[in-house]
Amino acid sequence: MATDRWVLNQSEIPSAWFNIAPSLPEPLKPPLHPGTGEPAGPDDLAPLFPMSLVEQEMSPQEWIDIPGEVLDVLSLWRPTPLVRARRLEQALGTPAKIFYKDESVSPAGSHKPNTAVAQAFYNKAEGIKRLSTETGAGQWGSALSFAGAQYGLEVQVYMVAVSYAQKPYRRVLMETWGGSVVPSPSDLTEVGKATLAENPDHPGSLGLAISEAIEDAVKRDDTHYSLGSVLNHVLLHQTVIGLEAKQQLALAGVDKPDVVLGSCGGGSNLGGITLPFAKDRIEGADIRLVAVEPESCPTLTKGRYEYDFGDVAGMTPKMEMYTLGHDFVPPPIHAGGLRYHGDSPIISSLVHHGQMEAVAYPQGKVFEAAVQFARAEGVVPAPETSHAVRAAIDEALDAKEKGEERVILFNFSGHGLLDLAAYDDFLHGRLTDA
Amino acid sequence: MATDRWVLNQSEIPSAWFNIAPSLPEPLKPPLHPGTGEPAGPDDLAPLFPMSLVEQEMSPQEWIDIPGEVLDVLSLWRPTPLVRARRLEQALGTPAKIFYKDESVSPAGSHKPNTAVAQAFYNKAEGIKRLSTETGAGQWGSALSFAGAQYGLEVQVYMVAVSYAQKPYRRVLMETWGGSVVPSPSDLTEVGKATLAENPDHPGSLGLAISEAIEDAVKRDDTHYSLGSVLNHVLLHQTVIGLEAKQQLALAGVDKPDVVLGSCGGGSNLGGITLPFAKDRIEGADIRLVAVEPESCPTLTKGRYEYDFGDVAGMTPKMEMYTLGHDFVPPPIHAGGLRYHGDSPIISSLVHHGQMEAVAYPQGKVFEAAVQFARAEGVVPAPETSHAVRAAIDEALDAKEKGEERVILFNFSGHGLLDLAAYDDFLHGRLTDA
Repeated sequence: MATDRWVLNQSEIPSAWFNIAPSLPEPLKPPLHPGTGEPAGPDDLAPLFPMSLVEQEMSPQEWIDIPGEVLDVLSLWRPTPLVRARRLEQALGTPAKIFYKDESVSPAGSHKPNTAVAQAFYNKAEGIKRLSTETGAGQWGSALSFAGAQYGLEVQVYMVAVSYAQKPYRRVLMETWGGSVVPSPSDLTEVGKATLAENPDHPGSLGLAISEAIEDAVKRDDTHYSLGSVLNHVLLHQTVIGLEAKQQLALAGVDKPDVVLGSCGGGSNLGGITLPFAKDRIEGADIRLVAVEPESCPTLTKGRYEYDFGDVAGMTPKMEMYTLGHDFVPPPIHAGGLRYHGDSPIISSLVHHGQMEAVAYPQGKVFEAAVQFARAEGVVPAPETSHAVRAAIDEALDAKEKGEERVILFNFSGHGLLDLAAYDDFLHGRLTDA
Repeated sequence: MATDRWVLNQSEIPSAWFNIAPSLPEPLKPPLHPGTGEPAGPDDLAPLFPMSLVEQEMSPQEWIDIPGEVLDVLSLWRPTPLVRARRLEQALGTPAKIFYKDESVSPAGSHKPNTAVAQAFYNKAEGIKRLSTETGAGQWGSALSFAGAQYGLEVQVYMVAVSYAQKPYRRVLMETWGGSVVPSPSDLTEVGKATLAENPDHPGSLGLAISEAIEDAVKRDDTHYSLGSVLNHVLLHQTVIGLEAKQQLALAGVDKPDVVLGSCGGGSNLGGITLPFAKDRIEGADIRLVAVEPESCPTLTKGRYEYDFGDVAGMTPKMEMYTLGHDFVPPPIHAGGLRYHGDSPIISSLVHHGQMEAVAYPQGKVFEAAVQFARAEGVVPAPETSHAVRAAIDEALDAKEKGEERVILFNFSGHGLLDLAAYDDFLHGRLTDA
């Protein structure tokens, strides 16, 4: 039997995160204070984040040690497997080699706990008792609730009201791990109360939920805010994905991949798999990096590269990034995690400087690939992940046409077991091809 | 960092299944033909099962080679991890060592694919094009749909109508893997049509779904029937669980476990983890084997040991086993996979001869343990699995009281991500303690 799954020992989890910042073609420009428009410093971020995360956000160091207490919790599911999708290759009849890094094996079913655990640890270490955050469909809120349970932190999640009502399973998952979940707008905050006063049936939005979570954190000394994507320290924590994949590719006898792919919403899973390869590329290695996004929210393929707010309400610092405008409202596609108007400044910089490509797909093509993958390989991809699956399949078909033994690596960022309603729509012809 | 997860290489998946039959204290009595009451032979089973499975059902051989084509598919997720639940131990303050074998990592999220893959392979090898089966909540139907996709077999699933309507997610999972799912009673069979003629809104039952699946298989030459538990060949295929666990315990420096536990419905996951240790026990090793069942369906703890039908309608051969009577209707608890009136003849024999203990728990105590486990270890157990979690925690607490370093091994048979409605009921006080 040919080996097609490589699993490292717990002692082989990377002992340090990789920071791409010092290797970028041009240094990242600083975030700007939303009120003054002046560069935002550590003091501006201190009410929301612990100082160790603020330092990581701005660090010039290439390697940052992972604390032992974080490794202990990561080791509940890490290292994650690297898998060669041999049955998919056979179904496609391609000479390409398709590898995927399986981040779906975490308790929450996605890559999100990689940073949730680190963030919970640093907050606990600085005396914080409680974290507030927002969540849409519940991926990030469940990751943070899990992490909170590991360190004995309370977690308060503001969940977009319409998702709270329509997608109860991730709400239950958060509660199972001890998280407190309220539909947003809620009566726990002033902004929530004002919104409810105007419209008691307000469906909520991610922007509004962010505003509630930030207000919650700012007004309580025992509470900080936690964000699941976009920021530099979040991408930093996700680099364990690509660092492990490098070790595993070596075990598989692969010198280097030809192309490294990931789906892109805020950029955290994409950063996780690509950044450890990005330095090699910047230094001349022949490795293509590809971001995959939905056609209905084409930030990298059709957005502008400029300073914009990270949230809809304009409360966060402005960051230089690709953006569709912070008031852009994407259509309600199933890949909720990819419905973001902006993108991580790091990812944006790589695309802007020609170090990373970006492609966009319509929803229907994405689910076609997802079903093909599930039937060949077993595991059912999340709608977000399915964007990377689509692009990996297209790379493999292109390699077939050109007769190339292309080595393709993509991040399998999460499973779709809590997204089966989307598959139901696709299989029964109810999917809009937005 | 202390190691607490042991993962073998793909080449270390066992190359043969372990057959306990020749080691049982007393040979199993033959099944009896439902019509004549005479011992049923291979010819009676041939319309339903391929000859290789009929032979395994009656085999006196201790080891039966696993075909390479089966190992290829099992290796998509096997070997599964053995995990030491160190955080749970700490939360309990116990000197006991708690190990669990994590079968939740399969594509279908449970141990069921271990036999589904083998059954699909042998049917394909004997020229069968199509499999029929029944499913309640969908655990078994999804495992068989996944296995069918791997070998290009059509899979027809008769799903209990009330579950089809109330639990759409596993139906979607089956369809994603290409399975055809109809609510039972259906108009695809005579028994289904007759039932619908009497009551067009019949909610269905597992017994009725079995009758439809058997009728489907008997009347079509290209179709066989497939069963997910109870039978000897099903338990045989599950022994990879215990065989791998033995290798992994050795890596963990454990000579032998003191107690091996599993939840018990039909007996397949329990057999999988315990049978490789049962021979050691029968030959004198000091290892306790424990079956854990729901108080509301107390087959082993309160049933009679006698010949009974395997199904509700009385169409299957009669088997000697513990039974509550084939017309017993258990209350609708959340652990649907444990709502079975009988038990595997192998498990029943071990209990009858004092080689295995049985304990029963009410639903509320089971979910308490499940939530405690999820908060400590991350992964959320299925309601069925949570019975084993409850018993493992109670063993650990008993060991604490007695100051013993007891080594506890249990089978984590599946995750609860498609059962979160049950957690919702528990967390919000809506669980009946049946």
